[in-house]
Amino acid sequence: MIIFVVNCGSSSIRYQLYDMADERALAGGMLQRVGTGEASLRQGSGGKEHTRMVRADDHAAGMRIVIDALTDPQIGVLSDVNLIDGIGHRVVHGGEEISGSVLIDDETLDVIRRCAKLAPLHNPPNIEGIGASMQAIPGKPNIAVFDTAFLATLEPKAYRYAVPTEWYERQGVRKYGFHGTSHRYVTLRAAELLGKELDELNLITVHLGNGCSMTAICGGKAVDHSMGMTPLDGLVMGTRSGRIDPAVTLYMQTRGLSAQEVDRVLNNESGLLGVSEVSNDMRDCISAAEAGDERAALAIDMFVYRIALYAGAYYAILPGVDAVVLTGGIGENAAGVRRRICDALGRLGAVCDENRNAETVGSKVGPITVEGSQLPVWVIPTNEELLIARDTRDIVEGLSQ
Amino acid sequence: MIIFVVNCGSSSIRYQLYDMADERALAGGMLQRVGTGEASLRQGSGGKEHTRMVRADDHAAGMRIVIDALTDPQIGVLSDVNLIDGIGHRVVHGGEEISGSVLIDDETLDVIRRCAKLAPLHNPPNIEGIGASMQAIPGKPNIAVFDTAFLATLEPKAYRYAVPTEWYERQGVRKYGFHGTSHRYVTLRAAELLGKELDELNLITVHLGNGCSMTAICGGKAVDHSMGMTPLDGLVMGTRSGRIDPAVTLYMQTRGLSAQEVDRVLNNESGLLGVSEVSNDMRDCISAAEAGDERAALAIDMFVYRIALYAGAYYAILPGVDAVVLTGGIGENAAGVRRRICDALGRLGAVCDENRNAETVGSKVGPITVEGSQLPVWVIPTNEELLIARDTRDIVEGLSQ
Repeated sequence: MIIFVVNCGSSSIRYQLYDMADERALAGGMLQRVGTGEASLRQGSGGKEHTRMVRADDHAAGMRIVIDALTDPQIGVLSDVNLIDGIGHRVVHGGEEISGSVLIDDETLDVIRRCAKLAPLHNPPNIEGIGASMQAIPGKPNIAVFDTAFLATLEPKAYRYAVPTEWYERQGVRKYGFHGTSHRYVTLRAAELLGKELDELNLITVHLGNGCSMTAICGGKAVDHSMGMTPLDGLVMGTRSGRIDPAVTLYMQTRGLSAQEVDRVLNNESGLLGVSEVSNDMRDCISAAEAGDERAALAIDMFVYRIALYAGAYYAILPGVDAVVLTGGIGENAAGVRRRICDALGRLGAVCDENRNAETVGSKVGPITVEGSQLPVWVIPTNEELLIARDTRDIVEGLSQ
Repeated sequence: MIIFVVNCGSSSIRYQLYDMADERALAGGMLQRVGTGEASLRQGSGGKEHTRMVRADDHAAGMRIVIDALTDPQIGVLSDVNLIDGIGHRVVHGGEEISGSVLIDDETLDVIRRCAKLAPLHNPPNIEGIGASMQAIPGKPNIAVFDTAFLATLEPKAYRYAVPTEWYERQGVRKYGFHGTSHRYVTLRAAELLGKELDELNLITVHLGNGCSMTAICGGKAVDHSMGMTPLDGLVMGTRSGRIDPAVTLYMQTRGLSAQEVDRVLNNESGLLGVSEVSNDMRDCISAAEAGDERAALAIDMFVYRIALYAGAYYAILPGVDAVVLTGGIGENAAGVRRRICDALGRLGAVCDENRNAETVGSKVGPITVEGSQLPVWVIPTNEELLIARDTRDIVEGLSQ
């Protein structure tokens, strides 16, 4: 079965094509600057990469370009677009109604549209991508895999905010959580790697990419999560503030900023970038800190410290913790930061193994704490696209039965 | 030495008069509805209470009424106002410049004025109270005891937010923390009660009144705290939301509320009141929950759960925890809620002792966990006024040397 996985941003289309017989990625790529007239397509397959400038005025045009590239006699991997059996779409926000992956029909589209008020930057391009895919690959099932779905198991005491009940009931103000596909992927992998039944597995999963989030996993299910109604809350991220006193947003409006400006600054000019004034990229912050930059050093301190606070919080509410799982670009590769995270979790029982930590980079999997560490810390590379492909396959298989 | 302790709100003056020879409260009272023309004075001394309606157009007039009551031949306890040796003022916000109690001079007043932008509801009436006291009791030293001072020992990784450094440097956006006098009082008491040197004492102190906050204490010093730049952040409170995704404040502005309305709702209509729709008073929520009200039950669930999250976070960053200390009206009296808090801290080692918990109410002090509980939980009634009186005495004594 051939599954096409699509992740549409406001000006980009990321994609992967899988042969589900062996879960092999046949090709993958990204179309950037959609809508600008100066788009660029980068596609890789069989270890080779091709780049070309193209014209993609909108997502529909962009999707045709992607399909042309996948079926191109030179750089393509498919002889015919009709060989695709199903299309899996990453969709950011499914609100309260969605707790799993679903076939996209009018009702699903309605939900995604309604949830756009909660994810105004993400759901609209997701919808465009779905429409574009339906046009470009007609007659094939489209499946939506939601970032919020894995967090649908949170209980009210964890997802409700202590704001007026009316804000929740009428305006949807609650914690939804994001990065769910990544947290679910590493949870499933951890069950395999630790040799535990999923429903007996308790974890603290830590996704550290440009966006960062943590999830408390009890019996294989999410019970709490660091992001909130939006992806702004929680950990320190590349450009997002994470947790702050909510009154800061109102205070800054009394200091001359509009609500929109505060929103933009907290999402795009805060986090590692805002504190370090160097970069939103952890690698740059590390280099700067090593060169003596105190602001970059503080940004890293805050990044690590915040993780320890959330880890402790989740440690307290879980019946036990089989492992802390680090994933995402920073989690998979930044050994120095991981070392500091392990040290910060020392009180909870983590003891870093220097060799394991140094070796477990570049998509490697394994523990980075010493044998017998009371709190094991593992690195498990995430693979959201593969999980989207699997969900899509499962639903497509169900359709044909 | 006679010390007069004053706490001025926007329309109230609370006060206590102490004889520091034995730290006895000679009299205490409260003037309410200052500025309305229909003020009421309630004063107690020697177990008797007197109430009278008065006219107090402003804090200066109010302070004269209070002094008249304290020196009144019938209900008073002082023959002459000049017997007062010093006046201690509770001041909410001392910003970054203040890390202890200080004699009030022009420079101190300048600091309090500058910090009014961070505490617009609290610092201005504090300043009015200081002026009124200087007029009504001329020639005596006035001392300021700040709610923020005990939290001045937080390190940057704990007090900084991951917002642009400019917001911190130019606008003062950082965590300050509040309730410092209460957290300091119970920390000092815990050192006595647990028989430990202050600099070896590690605690999690939990002030649960109408406002609620938690402090991580390491070696007798505050290292982290749940309130933020303002008292809005952190735990679920009577009418305050505590921690929420900061984006909620901006989202609600897109749903038709002004920034001022959001601010008001989060401070005055949220917390226990907002979720339960019953009351901001924990006792009412408990009654309603026992009568089957699900919203009230959820409000209490959230209240307890949030405390567990913070306790776990502080557990992770402290080298050890000698005790969790509960104080404030709820902490000192709500045995049912305390029972649930102990249960929620079970994973950290707390085991509730039903008898101890039931007995330790009404200003009683003691542990409420079983003998040998890995994490002892204590109830220690707070006494901010007495600590203000002590600080005032110490500074007055220093002046006369």
